[in-house]
Amino acid sequence: MDLIREDSFILVYRDRRRKWLVRPVDTPKLHTHLGILDCASLVGKPFGIVTATTMNDTLYVLKPTLEDIVMKFARRTQVIYPKDLAMIIMRCGIHSGSRVFEAGTGSGAATATFAYMVGPQGHVYSYDVNTEFQDVARKNLEKFGLIDAVTLKAKDAKEGIEETELDTALVDMGDPWELVANVKKALAPSGVMAAICPTANQAERLTERMKEEGFVNVETIEVLVRNLEARVGMTRPSQFMIGHTCYVTFGRKTE
Amino acid sequence: MDLIREDSFILVYRDRRRKWLVRPVDTPKLHTHLGILDCASLVGKPFGIVTATTMNDTLYVLKPTLEDIVMKFARRTQVIYPKDLAMIIMRCGIHSGSRVFEAGTGSGAATATFAYMVGPQGHVYSYDVNTEFQDVARKNLEKFGLIDAVTLKAKDAKEGIEETELDTALVDMGDPWELVANVKKALAPSGVMAAICPTANQAERLTERMKEEGFVNVETIEVLVRNLEARVGMTRPSQFMIGHTCYVTFGRKTE
Amino acid sequence: MDLIREDSFILVYRDRRRKWLVRPVDTPKLHTHLGILDCASLVGKPFGIVTATTMNDTLYVLKPTLEDIVMKFARRTQVIYPKDLAMIIMRCGIHSGSRVFEAGTGSGAATATFAYMVGPQGHVYSYDVNTEFQDVARKNLEKFGLIDAVTLKAKDAKEGIEETELDTALVDMGDPWELVANVKKALAPSGVMAAICPTANQAERLTERMKEEGFVNVETIEVLVRNLEARVGMTRPSQFMIGHTCYVTFGRKTE
Amino acid sequence: MDLIREDSFILVYRDRRRKWLVRPVDTPKLHTHLGILDCASLVGKPFGIVTATTMNDTLYVLKPTLEDIVMKFARRTQVIYPKDLAMIIMRCGIHSGSRVFEAGTGSGAATATFAYMVGPQGHVYSYDVNTEFQDVARKNLEKFGLIDAVTLKAKDAKEGIEETELDTALVDMGDPWELVANVKKALAPSGVMAAICPTANQAERLTERMKEEGFVNVETIEVLVRNLEARVGMTRPSQFMIGHTCYVTFGRKTE
Repeated sequence: MDLIREDSFILVYRDRRRKWLVRPVDTPKLHTHLGILDCASLVGKPFGIVTATTMNDTLYVLKPTLEDIVMKFARRTQVIYPKDLAMIIMRCGIHSGSRVFEAGTGSGAATATFAYMVGPQGHVYSYDVNTEFQDVARKNLEKFGLIDAVTLKAKDAKEGIEETELDTALVDMGDPWELVANVKKALAPSGVMAAICPTANQAERLTERMKEEGFVNVETIEVLVRNLEARVGMTRPSQFMIGHTCYVTFGRKTE
Repeated sequence: MDLIREDSFILVYRDRRRKWLVRPVDTPKLHTHLGILDCASLVGKPFGIVTATTMNDTLYVLKPTLEDIVMKFARRTQVIYPKDLAMIIMRCGIHSGSRVFEAGTGSGAATATFAYMVGPQGHVYSYDVNTEFQDVARKNLEKFGLIDAVTLKAKDAKEGIEETELDTALVDMGDPWELVANVKKALAPSGVMAAICPTANQAERLTERMKEEGFVNVETIEVLVRNLEARVGMTRPSQFMIGHTCYVTFGRKTE
Repeated sequence: MDLIREDSFILVYRDRRRKWLVRPVDTPKLHTHLGILDCASLVGKPFGIVTATTMNDTLYVLKPTLEDIVMKFARRTQVIYPKDLAMIIMRCGIHSGSRVFEAGTGSGAATATFAYMVGPQGHVYSYDVNTEFQDVARKNLEKFGLIDAVTLKAKDAKEGIEETELDTALVDMGDPWELVANVKKALAPSGVMAAICPTANQAERLTERMKEEGFVNVETIEVLVRNLEARVGMTRPSQFMIGHTCYVTFGRKTE
Repeated sequence: MDLIREDSFILVYRDRRRKWLVRPVDTPKLHTHLGILDCASLVGKPFGIVTATTMNDTLYVLKPTLEDIVMKFARRTQVIYPKDLAMIIMRCGIHSGSRVFEAGTGSGAATATFAYMVGPQGHVYSYDVNTEFQDVARKNLEKFGLIDAVTLKAKDAKEGIEETELDTALVDMGDPWELVANVKKALAPSGVMAAICPTANQAERLTERMKEEGFVNVETIEVLVRNLEARVGMTRPSQFMIGHTCYVTFGRKTE
């Protein structure tokens, strides 16, 4: 059984809006407006326990899921949303052993997700010219124990991609069409390219370029997630939902 | 580089609506209304090549992605859609090494997806009382080389789940609330339960039961995916979309 | 040409988030954080003019549309959203000359909309037991010059509807199923009933009851409206959207 | 009470997918695969009656609603969908007495809807260069008794709009930006322009042009309607929905 260690991330959960992702080593005492939680005293205990603050408010100590981790990366830069990452993983088939390339490390949220999925047999290569972003991403990847599966390079993918025979490439840059030729070279035969396109114009221009380069099954999707508030006799969809994050464009390389 | 073998699945792709998932060993000649493709002659060649039928119609020979495989399982029974599987993988964090339980093997589409994600370090346990379904699922899992990561049991999960310390459990049965207590026992501390609920009433009843059993962060979502037809100067969303497949309810176990 | 009068409502518009619906008679000087607008000086001028505040900020003086008016009613109570009212008008065919019944005056937003649509040849009958709500609604209807087309009754429609041969009835109460028999009596042959159902449970129960009472073509819909931020080279859907207001259930009376 | 006449349109309704819009004068006997309905014998009876075919299949005789009529126009050309028309009526405030202009008569579905809404005090002016379309639209408008409120002109609105002081103008042409200046002249001060834009590119280009011409509150929306299948204990959204018909762009004229 998985026990809480000093450097384990724990999700202290009260409800959907009040939750904290901390480590006992950094945050021995978690101060909330509901009282103080003695995180240090949780070390050695199992995840999933029900505890209380000094003001006797009930809190749940959970093991963070991938989504908790991804949302934690969302600090300084735009983060790719879990709903979009989910479809990228599924469509590209990123899994145990995959070799994944990423242009635009950004916050590192996608990097971390891919590192989590590919495990020790796979690897993630992530380029970004912004070294400040990469330093933040590196620190986060280290903290979450994901750095071994990742190589971060302070490089512009437009000037070339050093890796080859990659299973998947994700492009998260403002001008993804500029990367298509390089991505094609770097991908293994029949490899899948995905790109984040906030606007319809980007998707339009990228699609045209990908078709020119011989990508097939070029498709653009948008993903909408709506919560259902399920309560006995009063079930209704959530009043609020996110209307748009980005389009995601996919294509498969042919010779 | 990955070369096509006699028993490799290949996706013969023409366009979004015309594609075939076959193996040279089963289908040495693929007969289509666009002419015949000599699949046997593809053995030893790389994926991603562009070829032609006897009627000189261009076809692309692709390596199947996870989505191609999942859709192939959709024969006799209802299949869980890729969009919903994607969110389950993301929210539950199913990845290299995960131990996953499934109640309701059905077509085996989810089973295959999870087997694909967890890789050799993980494992998937899938129960179904319908042995006919399981035989079909087993055969498919064998063909796609995923059976080693899966244990299929002809059992009713309502009578007990033999495994323990599982990371995730997916329930795909008409009365998921009947499984909640058993799933709780089988999950590792802080493990995530997910359930497929085609109706709002199922989500409502399940949610109540999960909260009673101490699950927290109980949420129900629905996922909508819409295609964007990206064409220069004529970009518009797809006229057709799937309005509903199912709700998915998630919760995390606490003690 | 329509000129601004002392008691005309004018929409002072700056942008989507900053707009004011006022009358010169009530608000001769409109104080905003962008400066003061001399509304009194607008009397006698045409709608559509471009003017400026004392701080030289540009403002547009528009004639309020139906939507501006509806949103103005949204003060004390829940308002039926324009998107839902739009579908009710269309599906029920509320138009010049219609005789419309409403159970639940509420804020009067729907009452005002229907009064606006039916014109001098038609009429709207609206019942509510909450006289406080009706007083507010009456005052608003008077201000907007719509009261002549409306009869407000401080009555509970469950105890009977005095009108007959109505073209359409809208029910906006928590237990719409209790009204079905009375509405049936009040409607003209083949008349259309519509009901606001915030939850799926309400729609479910109402649907059953309507079918029992011989209503046909009983359908429940939800309407989602998403904005497209159309900007040259940067067109994308709006990040925020309303996920749910209510379901609307419709049915047609048969003998 | 409204009785069925020889030339009344009646909606013979069996279920959502089987319904017929006919007149006794044209169709004295309605032949269906469920048997024959003697429509001639319905003359003089009230709407809403329950009747039967020669094969004893139950049918309902309904008075057509606006939506039934609109869908009937959808024969030869693309029709603007009721959901989009509903939002146009609401946002533009088309009602008893409105003076409405339309560029692109097309099938006449929007023309008929507006004629229905504005009643005897209002009027609809509709231009189309395609006289074949207009002849079909005219015949339909006559049949439904809506022609008196409509003036059809075989003219290209790009060459000028003869009417002025219009409350609303709807543009349903492939290049709506070419009409903006003419529409501006024809609209009354603060009048509302709406335009049908199937693609995002059209909305983008039109928006830019409208802003240049001094329109304010320029907004583009899309409307999604999803059915809820409300059945006791089995309530779920409809599996099928329309993903996209068109964007609708709105703006208000200023000087």
